[in-house]
Amino acid sequence: MAQVNPTVGDLEGNSRLVADYARRAAEAGAHLVVFPEMVITGYPVEDLALRNSFVSASVKATHDLAERLAAEGLGDLPVMVGFLNRREGLGARFGQPAGAPQNSTALLHNGRVQLTSAKYHLPNYGVFDEFRNFVQGDTLPVVRLHGVDIAFAICEDLWQEGGPVKAVREAQAGMLITLNGSPYERDKDNVRLELCQRRAREIGAAVGYVNMSGAEDELIFEGDSLIVDADGELVARAPQFEDALLITDLRLPEAVQVSPPAAPVDGIRIVRHTISSRPVAPYEPVEPVLTPRPDPTDDIGEVYHALVTGLRDYVTKNGFTSTMVALSGGIDSALTATIATDAVGPENVHCVLLPSKYSSEHSVADAEELVKRQGVHGRTIPIEPIVEAFSGAITLDGLAAENLQARVRGTTVMALSNQEGHLVLATGNKSELATGYSTLYGDSVGGYAPIKDCWKTVVWDLARWRNAEAERRGEVPPIPEHSITKAPSAELRPGQFDTDSLPDYRLLDSLLDAYIGTDKGYLELTIAGFDPELVKRVIRLVDGAEYKRRQYPPGPKISSRNLSRDRRVPITNRWTP
Amino acid sequence: MAQVNPTVGDLEGNSRLVADYARRAAEAGAHLVVFPEMVITGYPVEDLALRNSFVSASVKATHDLAERLAAEGLGDLPVMVGFLNRREGLGARFGQPAGAPQNSTALLHNGRVQLTSAKYHLPNYGVFDEFRNFVQGDTLPVVRLHGVDIAFAICEDLWQEGGPVKAVREAQAGMLITLNGSPYERDKDNVRLELCQRRAREIGAAVGYVNMSGAEDELIFEGDSLIVDADGELVARAPQFEDALLITDLRLPEAVQVSPPAAPVDGIRIVRHTISSRPVAPYEPVEPVLTPRPDPTDDIGEVYHALVTGLRDYVTKNGFTSTMVALSGGIDSALTATIATDAVGPENVHCVLLPSKYSSEHSVADAEELVKRQGVHGRTIPIEPIVEAFSGAITLDGLAAENLQARVRGTTVMALSNQEGHLVLATGNKSELATGYSTLYGDSVGGYAPIKDCWKTVVWDLARWRNAEAERRGEVPPIPEHSITKAPSAELRPGQFDTDSLPDYRLLDSLLDAYIGTDKGYLELTIAGFDPELVKRVIRLVDGAEYKRRQYPPGPKISSRNLSRDRRVPITNRWTP
Repeated sequence: MAQVNPTVGDLEGNSRLVADYARRAAEAGAHLVVFPEMVITGYPVEDLALRNSFVSASVKATHDLAERLAAEGLGDLPVMVGFLNRREGLGARFGQPAGAPQNSTALLHNGRVQLTSAKYHLPNYGVFDEFRNFVQGDTLPVVRLHGVDIAFAICEDLWQEGGPVKAVREAQAGMLITLNGSPYERDKDNVRLELCQRRAREIGAAVGYVNMSGAEDELIFEGDSLIVDADGELVARAPQFEDALLITDLRLPEAVQVSPPAAPVDGIRIVRHTISSRPVAPYEPVEPVLTPRPDPTDDIGEVYHALVTGLRDYVTKNGFTSTMVALSGGIDSALTATIATDAVGPENVHCVLLPSKYSSEHSVADAEELVKRQGVHGRTIPIEPIVEAFSGAITLDGLAAENLQARVRGTTVMALSNQEGHLVLATGNKSELATGYSTLYGDSVGGYAPIKDCWKTVVWDLARWRNAEAERRGEVPPIPEHSITKAPSAELRPGQFDTDSLPDYRLLDSLLDAYIGTDKGYLELTIAGFDPELVKRVIRLVDGAEYKRRQYPPGPKISSRNLSRDRRVPITNRWTP
Repeated sequence: MAQVNPTVGDLEGNSRLVADYARRAAEAGAHLVVFPEMVITGYPVEDLALRNSFVSASVKATHDLAERLAAEGLGDLPVMVGFLNRREGLGARFGQPAGAPQNSTALLHNGRVQLTSAKYHLPNYGVFDEFRNFVQGDTLPVVRLHGVDIAFAICEDLWQEGGPVKAVREAQAGMLITLNGSPYERDKDNVRLELCQRRAREIGAAVGYVNMSGAEDELIFEGDSLIVDADGELVARAPQFEDALLITDLRLPEAVQVSPPAAPVDGIRIVRHTISSRPVAPYEPVEPVLTPRPDPTDDIGEVYHALVTGLRDYVTKNGFTSTMVALSGGIDSALTATIATDAVGPENVHCVLLPSKYSSEHSVADAEELVKRQGVHGRTIPIEPIVEAFSGAITLDGLAAENLQARVRGTTVMALSNQEGHLVLATGNKSELATGYSTLYGDSVGGYAPIKDCWKTVVWDLARWRNAEAERRGEVPPIPEHSITKAPSAELRPGQFDTDSLPDYRLLDSLLDAYIGTDKGYLELTIAGFDPELVKRVIRLVDGAEYKRRQYPPGPKISSRNLSRDRRVPITNRWTP
């Protein structure tokens, strides 16, 4: 199982990645190598699926790859990949995506695409829009390899009852392997393993789960590829958030002769393909890899690794090498810089301190201390002369004067980014995004927002975790303790604290999580014990901040509702529950 | 037919709107009044449909409205509305939107909801995501009113063969009325009329088409409600882009006794409801309203009206009364200000001239001339002192120095907007958005972008049309001629012209339209005669500008591909065709 990290649209690079891992698998003596969902195109492709020239390019790249593998002496090794295909022979019709694209598998062997099959269950919720982009499949491929029958399916097909899973049982395959592009979510925990175990017992066959690693736009793929035997026992497991080639020897039952079912099972036709019927000669199996899972109570550590993965891939896949962060001395920018340091190295993190006349001494000191501890680039640019130049041209007070300072900072980091080529990171957290507690074109500028899906309370947890982790490793904690412990303040006017405009973050985050995370309405929230006036106020803040949220840079998704795509309502919406 | 303009989420306001028009219809002696699709909730509701409390609120508002109509003495008048309903009794299952919401009709009569029925054909392309948000219906309501059978369906159900349309023929109804929220598109022309005519002949019955007016977020609803008789002859037609109550008397055939079909027709069950079987006594019919369509060759005038409608409703539905535009003296900002003046009145348009040291004298003069001609508010704020303050703090050259000027302007108008409460309008056109020829957080700031779906060549056409229209009316042309005729320049460095970085706009727009409008790839574009090097360059520009486009403010959609939602690809995408 090749747990790899393709890039959307980089057909040449992704094909090279497959060829490299196929060679490594062949060298290790593998009889079969399986790659993740849509590895040839990268995943998710979104509306690129509707572009005819893109589908053609994917089909061509897949055929070319089959030839290339053979030309490189790898034609004997069956290679199963995911790619973007089209359903031929379908006329245009209502409800069918233009060009009939399909999320497919392809078996590459002996220099040819031997077999293709498309995903049957198309997810259409949360970040997924697969009904919009794909035509569903209707086959289950079963490949006889060395006298063993192996069935293949794609991602959601394993999660749903019926369809391919039912057809696997009917086909009496000895193993089911699924190709996945399954995004990380904080509360998923061991849910993939438990699913594979349940399915293995249901179908009486081993189950292999190949997942993608890396990140693409807002999605993080956590890897964690695994194999369970027919009893549901875990046999092999790859690490999280890393590329891996998981080499495993399995003892699988000899294929039985099954009379083909008269009709499709649950809409699924079983398609058989034989590579070889002869069992392999006995040999000494390799020791299976069983990467230990981190302590399940270390949920915050897992989130931290996910955020580092998301940032690293967004920077590199967009062709940047370095990042820029405006440091305020507060916890949000401190954590953002720390994640950047862990993702791209301190030499690629450029911090800017932009003090105003309202910045406290401790803010500057805390920011400087962070620069020193992490060894990142740091410079200080007082914004007062620029703010004064604006004040000479226009008369502002109140919120407008506060926001001006944030916008002068935004303009300054964007100018430096333009001049020097760094990707600017926005430092807003999810509590701010939810309530609109940020300045449009001010602190919200940038190309990526690493902590936008983290509640403020989670930001503190992450900072404490990272410092504790450093201590465990015998290193200096990267984040100055004072940035974690002090009361949060935007410092846009004298003596300002977040709690002047927002409730305490423990209370706020629990309310926001109930409203946004579980979509409870006013009535349910008050029944749950929240103060009715506070509920009204927070709902008004959240629903009024839709425009700001849309303008915010993308960031890594770690929850099932991340305020970007998952909860989009018209800006002109006048409803509050 | 009540061609009205509801607001998404404003259940109370929308209910009041229905009650007002129902009263007017009753006073005019109507036997039936029909409202547009989802009039109770507004349309489109997007992911609000997935919120249980919102669905409940819509259902309650609809029942309350039935009671209210009766309480106000309007219980006798059958009122057909569109609303958000839920399909009861469906457990959660894969592929089904959470809570089983439905895009439904409701017949309000005698103080009760007598009948509901849901949309069958759910569009899932372009701006529509209805598979994501709704469960499809399976009934066709046929209402016997004064001895005449009238069937009802929703929007897309009229456009598609089979399903409801087929069931109408089976039911032998005397008329089919559809409730619509059908967005404006530049090339739709008379396509709605032609569709109604074709369907009328197919089903052998009159067809009524009730459309929404106004705008919601990026969509504009053009009205143009109409009725054709069973021969397909146009009987009545409401105006475009305006609210209207279209009162029409029709001679309809007496209902025939049809034995109910044994099985559903095309998945559709016919549901009959009788209000009254007795024909009305003969009376003198009113003269039907037949609003003349504007000259079909005056396509540009229609676009102009659509843009004015879009801007007006976005401003008012978001709770603003006034707008702010940064005037450069160029054509884009001149047209934007003119549309704003027509939409919200010159007293609500605040123009800011922000000259830099590179601004030419004619730019300032042209901008001042526009302020004078239109009677809008105008003020001049030279940005040089602010740019110098930045230059004192950071060293910039080249593109970074150019972008700084745009960002100083952006910060200035946002500060004034914050201080004074105007909605800032971004002035970018579609050619700029497509190629990324704009500054993130500079000229792209604002809450709405009125010409973002207009190619530069269309911007010129619109400006010329508006000036000619003024002359036709004997008024002063609002746009200074020189703003239309001069060579376009961003004036961010001495002697800069758009043609330094971009090809001539006639050529550029035709290439962009072929690439974006029809999704042709490199090969097809070169075969179509475009220079291969230019194609490569423009494709690189377009695909590289995805991030800027996502950060751009929303704007009115006038084409089938408006660069906002219709063509979304991952930012990390590395593919160019």
